[in-house]
Amino acid sequence: MTNSKALSVSELAELVGGTVFGEGSTTIERIANLETAEAEEIAYVDSEKYFDVARESRASCLIVPSGAKFEDTNATLIEVKNPKLAFAIIGAALNPAKHREPGVHESASVAETADLALTAYLGPNVSVGEFSSIGAATRIEAGVVIGDNVSIGVGCVIHPNVVLYDGVSIGNNVILHAGVCIGADGFGYVRDNMGYHKFPQIGTVVIEDDVEIGAHTCIDRAALGRTRIGRGTKLDNMVHVGHNCDIGERVVIAAQTGISGSVVIEDDAVIGGQVGFGDHTRVQKGAIIGSKAGILPGKIVRPGVWWGIPIQPLDEYKRLNAHISRLPQMRDELKALQQKIKELEEKLKP
Amino acid sequence: MTNSKALSVSELAELVGGTVFGEGSTTIERIANLETAEAEEIAYVDSEKYFDVARESRASCLIVPSGAKFEDTNATLIEVKNPKLAFAIIGAALNPAKHREPGVHESASVAETADLALTAYLGPNVSVGEFSSIGAATRIEAGVVIGDNVSIGVGCVIHPNVVLYDGVSIGNNVILHAGVCIGADGFGYVRDNMGYHKFPQIGTVVIEDDVEIGAHTCIDRAALGRTRIGRGTKLDNMVHVGHNCDIGERVVIAAQTGISGSVVIEDDAVIGGQVGFGDHTRVQKGAIIGSKAGILPGKIVRPGVWWGIPIQPLDEYKRLNAHISRLPQMRDELKALQQKIKELEEKLKP
Amino acid sequence: MTNSKALSVSELAELVGGTVFGEGSTTIERIANLETAEAEEIAYVDSEKYFDVARESRASCLIVPSGAKFEDTNATLIEVKNPKLAFAIIGAALNPAKHREPGVHESASVAETADLALTAYLGPNVSVGEFSSIGAATRIEAGVVIGDNVSIGVGCVIHPNVVLYDGVSIGNNVILHAGVCIGADGFGYVRDNMGYHKFPQIGTVVIEDDVEIGAHTCIDRAALGRTRIGRGTKLDNMVHVGHNCDIGERVVIAAQTGISGSVVIEDDAVIGGQVGFGDHTRVQKGAIIGSKAGILPGKIVRPGVWWGIPIQPLDEYKRLNAHISRLPQMRDELKALQQKIKELEEKLKP
Repeated sequence: MTNSKALSVSELAELVGGTVFGEGSTTIERIANLETAEAEEIAYVDSEKYFDVARESRASCLIVPSGAKFEDTNATLIEVKNPKLAFAIIGAALNPAKHREPGVHESASVAETADLALTAYLGPNVSVGEFSSIGAATRIEAGVVIGDNVSIGVGCVIHPNVVLYDGVSIGNNVILHAGVCIGADGFGYVRDNMGYHKFPQIGTVVIEDDVEIGAHTCIDRAALGRTRIGRGTKLDNMVHVGHNCDIGERVVIAAQTGISGSVVIEDDAVIGGQVGFGDHTRVQKGAIIGSKAGILPGKIVRPGVWWGIPIQPLDEYKRLNAHISRLPQMRDELKALQQKIKELEEKLKP
Repeated sequence: MTNSKALSVSELAELVGGTVFGEGSTTIERIANLETAEAEEIAYVDSEKYFDVARESRASCLIVPSGAKFEDTNATLIEVKNPKLAFAIIGAALNPAKHREPGVHESASVAETADLALTAYLGPNVSVGEFSSIGAATRIEAGVVIGDNVSIGVGCVIHPNVVLYDGVSIGNNVILHAGVCIGADGFGYVRDNMGYHKFPQIGTVVIEDDVEIGAHTCIDRAALGRTRIGRGTKLDNMVHVGHNCDIGERVVIAAQTGISGSVVIEDDAVIGGQVGFGDHTRVQKGAIIGSKAGILPGKIVRPGVWWGIPIQPLDEYKRLNAHISRLPQMRDELKALQQKIKELEEKLKP
Repeated sequence: MTNSKALSVSELAELVGGTVFGEGSTTIERIANLETAEAEEIAYVDSEKYFDVARESRASCLIVPSGAKFEDTNATLIEVKNPKLAFAIIGAALNPAKHREPGVHESASVAETADLALTAYLGPNVSVGEFSSIGAATRIEAGVVIGDNVSIGVGCVIHPNVVLYDGVSIGNNVILHAGVCIGADGFGYVRDNMGYHKFPQIGTVVIEDDVEIGAHTCIDRAALGRTRIGRGTKLDNMVHVGHNCDIGERVVIAAQTGISGSVVIEDDAVIGGQVGFGDHTRVQKGAIIGSKAGILPGKIVRPGVWWGIPIQPLDEYKRLNAHISRLPQMRDELKALQQKIKELEEKLKP
């Protein structure tokens, strides 16, 4: 939810390196869907399948792929190579992030040794522990709890009721959605005949620059060393990241996926929702894992598309699934053979 | 947890349109289980299977199905058509919702432009943003964070530490349990060779009347337009609802189910726990989906009972599962056939 | 995250009943991994597989299994029966729990009828309801919301933004991580032709001594009676425990597992992550259930190792999985037989 702002088509085209066809001075106020767009709105189309819908759109401006023919439309056009990306950039320009006056709300509790940038914003009931630092232009919304020795970079948005345990480190331009919990103790115990003894959880968590983390995602601190979320990685809601995991750069993980301790996910992996990782697995660069998959402990997941419980290459998964669905037919064929053999045996009886 | 209140059997019977057999002036203080009920308690029985247990119950009053014969019990009886429903209604009467004196706790932070009903209650450390409104008799418990331009209807209970992002709309008589998060950004990005760019998430969320949402459930705002939870729908704990979903009326969704973006669930669907929905699926009115099921993107789920990953009609799922469990036997039969054929071939050798 | 403290090898050995070989006065400041340990650090080795790594470790002290031969190392040795357990105990000694000065932060809101031990700590923006009690040396971190009639024992650590609903009971030495929610209403409704009516949820939750509960785990109150988490049990992050569950002592449950209503899990069970339990299941003492398993309602899970959806004994699961992966080959064999029989039939034609 952001505050909207009007810009001209020419200004928008310049932002995305696009070419304008039509009236560049047209004012655009909002982004919209092709189907529901109205005057003063901008929409995009990136697939020929929707060209007809686009031609009928009432949007004042359309972002279209370079070389597309749109003579019959009344809309002003911006031609670009990647319309969806241009739409994202234009959407951000028309809806600048919420502005907060820098300052600390009177109800916030900030330790004297904490180091807050002058341009930081701290909302109601925020609390900040000893020796923690908050960078310039970072926005900490209501109810956020920041422990001791926490470091938060510049330009971050920390949404309400996030909890950052002692010692965790948050990079620049990081977005943490409501209720995110970073740095709780990893789940490690030693059993003896009395019960479970807590294994030390004294490591930390490092969240690198440009990471966005969905609501209520929990990232545990390392037992020793650190749990890491690499630069530009995006996690959806309610993801669980166990202690000592090392998630690389530009990784995408969908909602409710659970990652056991000491898992390594290399750069650019794409992970679906509700996936479960056994501990000490390694996902190699470029691997894609489908939703609801299950990965056994210690497994190495090579590049390619993976699916199922336990995971298999997608092609193999499909092939086995097809075999399974033909099981009733196979059963019938087997029975038919048994009958035939019986008949043959009868015939051959002396 | 509510405050209990004593009523007579006659008063209770009137509430549920029931017929009293025995002493209508008997005082009832609490609801209880058949097995553990004591004097001044009321229990219910709705299945003949438990009639004997009911006859031995020490409850002062029993709610029984119309026409049931309970001559041998000492309890006063209330006869109704649906004993479990009557028990629910009587339970609510004996345990009225927690009463809070209207008013705003001194530690709450309320924007000057916010519009609070005189009979609303705002607990400790609640914060309310600009231009938000809170309806009559609505109770906002401690630590709740309400953004700007949020609308909350009458008679709602918002439990502690709930977060409502800017612009979301909550109907009347809505119950949000602790930690619910409504309106965080949907999970949408555009990839280029630099990494992921955030796709605009500037829509909203609409929660209609009589909805109850379990602890820590997260409902994301729409990219454009709105995410909707229809009237009378009930969500359990830790459910994830992605951007632009449209959940109909009187839908029930059990805990930890995850719903990707743009999913439509029509009225009266029943969804188990830990179910996963691919994006753009549609669940038709009257469909029932078993726990842990997985639905592939774009799938249309017709009325009936569905099960498995990927989902199949329950009967088919059971049939295939039976075939799978007979695989070892099928293997043996196949081997026996191979042997027999070998023997036949031997016999037929010239 | 804790504050470290230096101790001598002799002091540490005494803590764990170990025998020192080498210089007992050596000062140890930190625990570390074998591979990365440096001077003034202590590491452990419990498997012969790592003896060579241990010999090359730069740790000042190594905890080794009784009878192991480590003549060639420069490190001081502590010999014990269970090195990992000794390491856990020594780790706790070197990293004592965070110290908070007893007292109530000025921003906390505490009901006049609440009963706080003199040595308890209440952080910023904590709120405590009527007639609740907090035991000695218990630490309640920022933003925690405690309802009315809540009882919390001695020596507990309640991390930020935990919510305890009215009437729940927390034992001694309990650790609740950030965002834990205890006592929200169970998920129970009665359907009629108008929609869903809330079934009364007026029971409570009892958490016994020495329990640790991971971030964002939700434990619902009982409809009637109580939901119980037994002594010494450990729950990971984002576990869902439904109404009226009875979880025994020393049970371990990994992240994102969901437990429906009225499930009984007996002492010493071990449950993986993302497991789903149907209602009214019973897990017997000593059962082990693998991650992602699914248990049908009403099932009794006997001792042993279980796996799959629906669960089967692990051996059987593996056997069936092997059969499934051989399905394509089985198909081929079946076809070959069909061909052979055809040939035999040809031969036998008159």
